[in-house]
Amino acid sequence: MAPRENTFETTPDDSARPTRIVVVGGVAAGMSAAARARRLDESAEIVVLDRGEHVSFAGCGLPYHVGGEIASADALLVQTPDSLRAALNLDVRTRHDVVALDAAARTVTARTPDGDRTIAYDALVLAPGAQAVRPPLPGIDSPRVRTLRTVPDAVTLRGWVGAGARRAVVLGAGFIGLEAAEQLAAAGLDVALVELADHVLPPLEAELASLVRDELTRLGIAVHEATAATAVEPGPEHDVVVLGDGARLPADLVVLSVGVRPDTAVFEAAGIATERGAIVVDAHGRTSLPGVWAAGDAVVSTHAVTGARRPVPLAGPANRAGRQVADAILRPATARPIPPAVGTAIVRVGTLAAGLTGANRAELDAAGIAHHTIHLHPSQHAGWFPGATQVHLVLHVGEDGRILGAQAAGADGVDKRLDVLATSIRGGLTAEDLVDLDLAYAPPFGAAKDPVNLAGMLAANVLDGTLRLWHAADLDDVEATALVLDVRSAAEFASAHLPGALNVPHTELRARLAEVRDAAAGRPVRVTCQSGVRAHIAHRVLVANGFDSASLSGGMLTLRAALGRAADARLVTEEVLAR
Amino acid sequence: MAPRENTFETTPDDSARPTRIVVVGGVAAGMSAAARARRLDESAEIVVLDRGEHVSFAGCGLPYHVGGEIASADALLVQTPDSLRAALNLDVRTRHDVVALDAAARTVTARTPDGDRTIAYDALVLAPGAQAVRPPLPGIDSPRVRTLRTVPDAVTLRGWVGAGARRAVVLGAGFIGLEAAEQLAAAGLDVALVELADHVLPPLEAELASLVRDELTRLGIAVHEATAATAVEPGPEHDVVVLGDGARLPADLVVLSVGVRPDTAVFEAAGIATERGAIVVDAHGRTSLPGVWAAGDAVVSTHAVTGARRPVPLAGPANRAGRQVADAILRPATARPIPPAVGTAIVRVGTLAAGLTGANRAELDAAGIAHHTIHLHPSQHAGWFPGATQVHLVLHVGEDGRILGAQAAGADGVDKRLDVLATSIRGGLTAEDLVDLDLAYAPPFGAAKDPVNLAGMLAANVLDGTLRLWHAADLDDVEATALVLDVRSAAEFASAHLPGALNVPHTELRARLAEVRDAAAGRPVRVTCQSGVRAHIAHRVLVANGFDSASLSGGMLTLRAALGRAADARLVTEEVLAR
Repeated sequence: MAPRENTFETTPDDSARPTRIVVVGGVAAGMSAAARARRLDESAEIVVLDRGEHVSFAGCGLPYHVGGEIASADALLVQTPDSLRAALNLDVRTRHDVVALDAAARTVTARTPDGDRTIAYDALVLAPGAQAVRPPLPGIDSPRVRTLRTVPDAVTLRGWVGAGARRAVVLGAGFIGLEAAEQLAAAGLDVALVELADHVLPPLEAELASLVRDELTRLGIAVHEATAATAVEPGPEHDVVVLGDGARLPADLVVLSVGVRPDTAVFEAAGIATERGAIVVDAHGRTSLPGVWAAGDAVVSTHAVTGARRPVPLAGPANRAGRQVADAILRPATARPIPPAVGTAIVRVGTLAAGLTGANRAELDAAGIAHHTIHLHPSQHAGWFPGATQVHLVLHVGEDGRILGAQAAGADGVDKRLDVLATSIRGGLTAEDLVDLDLAYAPPFGAAKDPVNLAGMLAANVLDGTLRLWHAADLDDVEATALVLDVRSAAEFASAHLPGALNVPHTELRARLAEVRDAAAGRPVRVTCQSGVRAHIAHRVLVANGFDSASLSGGMLTLRAALGRAADARLVTEEVLAR
Repeated sequence: MAPRENTFETTPDDSARPTRIVVVGGVAAGMSAAARARRLDESAEIVVLDRGEHVSFAGCGLPYHVGGEIASADALLVQTPDSLRAALNLDVRTRHDVVALDAAARTVTARTPDGDRTIAYDALVLAPGAQAVRPPLPGIDSPRVRTLRTVPDAVTLRGWVGAGARRAVVLGAGFIGLEAAEQLAAAGLDVALVELADHVLPPLEAELASLVRDELTRLGIAVHEATAATAVEPGPEHDVVVLGDGARLPADLVVLSVGVRPDTAVFEAAGIATERGAIVVDAHGRTSLPGVWAAGDAVVSTHAVTGARRPVPLAGPANRAGRQVADAILRPATARPIPPAVGTAIVRVGTLAAGLTGANRAELDAAGIAHHTIHLHPSQHAGWFPGATQVHLVLHVGEDGRILGAQAAGADGVDKRLDVLATSIRGGLTAEDLVDLDLAYAPPFGAAKDPVNLAGMLAANVLDGTLRLWHAADLDDVEATALVLDVRSAAEFASAHLPGALNVPHTELRARLAEVRDAAAGRPVRVTCQSGVRAHIAHRVLVANGFDSASLSGGMLTLRAALGRAADARLVTEEVLAR
């Protein structure tokens, strides 16, 4: 066994002020904990151990170096051990791979280029992060298959791109996979993107994910959904990625981004409590072992909306939890609890941004939380101001009006609406509260009724029964049992409509109610328009006139997106009519 | 007297369902009330009266037509009486200038091109808006002096720009004045902008307003602050605007935008209760007259933070209040109260956006609300991602941590942070809650610690004493009684620093504490750096070593901006040193 690096006494009492804080992991949570600890305690010895060559690097920037949007890898190195020593008097030790924890002795052992080192601590912060999942496929260890977790990973891939790689396969269309695919395509490679789930960006609802798929396609990326790699066949010139659906994709490089798992084996071996591999912590980041705290991607987090327990591998929550762990260690009397995770995330794909906050439909269903879902497609700023584009919004609200989750996609203003909705979820706001938000309006920035206000109005209308919705998922039922009333203009109707739909423009509806009544012949009327606005107006007219009516949530825009590739088969289009 | 237009019975009981709703004013609040009323009641007769030629026009777009950014005035006409008739069965009557209200008889009288018309109502909604203030100056009635309140106003000014106007004077540097000045400059005119208050955009704190002034100057606009026009001298070729400071500004056109006042004389004459000319309403928009509601720029509103009562001439609150008045009339049992106004506003000036939400320093002081103010200058997205620019943030928090007000300026991401902070104010969130916000982060959109998170951390540090600030306003005191310790690099220090400051870069501070102690000679140490980040680190080191220390809020960036044009006289610059 290697010699103990030092011999000072450890402090057996957790409540005593520690003299030496050891942090395992020097990126988001770990470095935040270390930096905050120094600001709170000038005299503590603070040691940061990291197995890699670099600490405090910009993990979220790695895909952007691969494609060259971040030209220099140096830009990714936000801090160095030297700069951290100079500014914060931190003792940062890279190439220190912690391989053992002895909680009774209050030591960790790190494997280093110079042999093992055992390091004593008074307080230990575990921020080991997550490691990329590597599915056990034939050929997965081909040197052309790379994950994208470290600066050297990004530099290697960037090197291959610079050296003339032409064909890339990205396995996994989550956030990092999408960024990698976008960047590789922007660098001129032929890119194929493979996703096991039914659609790219699986946490996104299908009706928004299809917008992402369309944008990927527009960027020239070949999207393979609902299939997975079954093997990688290495070759002398290039590899071939074989998919479950039989496709064979030649690849000069393969980016593996099918998920991450907490990197906790060493700590599990030391007896720390975990759930499905993630470290269990209390509200202050304290683990089951005395004197040991944890934060970041390796830790179980509680979902703010559903209460589900799972790791949340996001940089923001990791940074903030690390900071709060330092408070818990150094100011236990006043430290605030680490809040449950709202789980906000966003990705840029070409000219599109797409993201989500709170719970999605699947999570709400899994948690048994009853909810209404609304869709809308307002302009990101006043429609009459140049440059207006649509923000496609999905909002899930509870029966009590509480905002449970929201998703958005569009060319502009998506991040802003997600942030307002994330803030609303954190603040426990309701649909009616969204109506009341005084958001910043001038024509270049928003609208007198901001998309978030409109979402609140729409949801409030649904909750109080002013508006009754039908959804794309109801389409089979509706076609079997109801009259579809399409209140768009004749030209819009002609371009694509549901089979059997009656077209009465909303401006003519009051005068043509008898016609609707005849066509309905006692059936319910299910109204649609392009985005849901005109159908709402028509719905109110119909209800006032005694009809059983409902309005298609998000209109034909949402319906088409929800149907995805099946839309052409379900709609009567001009092309169909021309046959 | 003109004949009564109709003879149906009015409803003496307010709680009865009205059969005829008359709305006075067909723009934001009025048209929202009318449209919502129709969606709630298909059978009511809904009449909208407006004195102008147009209803439902884009009032906030008018400056952008003057400069041509909105090329066609048609784009400003969002709806027409015909389109409103077709979609919503509204009876919209333009050129109907309401000149009398008889609340006992439940009638209004409108002056029309065809004579006076008296119109009966069951429920009356007053949304007359505001009119431009016209100070009683000699020459103010020159035809070259125009306000910018209607589509014809914008068309006229646009016409003059197209016909070769070269010199413009804009009187009043509020939101509309700034937009008009920016647009006229963009159209190639020489523009002078005149503001009575000490700085442009008076509701903005001086330390942000100076960024707006700098941008105006960069756009070639001549900014005259702390002065006002005393006369307009009309001439055959052009007018001359004479300022209080003696300047004489030739003008081919003058835009008058020195403020607005509620347009309520007719209703005051009818006995409606007002406060300083604004109609008093209850939480449901009900006025002192039975059967009469009011909303929009003509109505007194309560400030959500300070409780101050004044009209809030903003499109968003007007639209939403109009909608809620319709609820109050048609669904009195379930109508929600109209919330107090948070008062969020923003303006684009060239490449800069600047805005505010909640209360500013002057409003807080006037209300006697104790508060802390913090300044920060983080990047709008990850600093290592291309295109990073600073968001300059000011945050006012109460002693209890409550967010009281926030302001922001910068090239990008300003509207988003204002909206998150506006939502936080509406939700009653505290500084600590801002720390906990899970905001959407990917490198193109934000940072793992978003500017709003950072603002929360900074404010929480101030509230719990971890950070003690000093402010630009304390400069005289500090120079007289303290050692200024500048912890920037030697090069930064050389470029501009406070006289008498000691320069010890923060990375050298721990080794040079004795030097600081000697220089302080018992005086407090007041630390500064460029933006406040390094000074905070240094402050913590100093406190741990027994110094009386405080850190300059927002660093030299905020100090210079707060000093404005006085900065050069207060700082030692390289230029000074070179003399």
